[in-house]
Amino acid sequence: MGRLNIRIDLDSGGRIGPGKIALLEHISAAGSISAGARELNMSYKRAWDLVEELNVLFSTPVVETRTGGKRGGGAQLTSVGQLVVSRFRALEIAAQATAKEHIDAIQAQLAAN
Amino acid sequence: MGRLNIRIDLDSGGRIGPGKIALLEHISAAGSISAGARELNMSYKRAWDLVEELNVLFSTPVVETRTGGKRGGGAQLTSVGQLVVSRFRALEIAAQATAKEHIDAIQAQLAAN
Repeated sequence: MGRLNIRIDLDSGGRIGPGKIALLEHISAAGSISAGARELNMSYKRAWDLVEELNVLFSTPVVETRTGGKRGGGAQLTSVGQLVVSRFRALEIAAQATAKEHIDAIQAQLAAN
Repeated sequence: MGRLNIRIDLDSGGRIGPGKIALLEHISAAGSISAGARELNMSYKRAWDLVEELNVLFSTPVVETRTGGKRGGGAQLTSVGQLVVSRFRALEIAAQATAKEHIDAIQAQLAAN
């Protein structure tokens, strides 16, 4: 069935959508911004810019970085970062379920291929 | 409160979002593609391309044009066009209501400005 692609336009003017959320998830799983970006075929600069864009939106940064050490630092989601990801994914699932009836009605009118 | 911006990615590969829906609404209200496009500050060519993109998605075109006559023709939504618009708007309202709890939880973490 058809799928919703959802973005939240926040009161502050910030925007949160599937691209930023996927980046946070990959940073969390990979343990670093560079590795997370690589998995998404995203440039390191682009990833940093998106993380910084998110960090300044919230009262606490969403990604926390550690510098130095043998492995050259790393990154992890803060509790705010985890909340943003989990709420966004929950919102997507709930909205998709709610929308199903309407999507089905639209899809029933699609041309046969 | 924050607002959802929703697009439907259809099984057929087509996409329907707020831009195309607003165009259909303006065409319907204005009675012509050119007038509808003008109200949205959209070029006539761009509007025609979007209408054509929608028309081929469905088993019946969403916009019906009349040519000739003193006023140079006009356009109106077909019943399929009307269904697509009303279902999309209903879907937006339902999804926004469903998402409210999650949006509020995210917004509660926004930085004070």
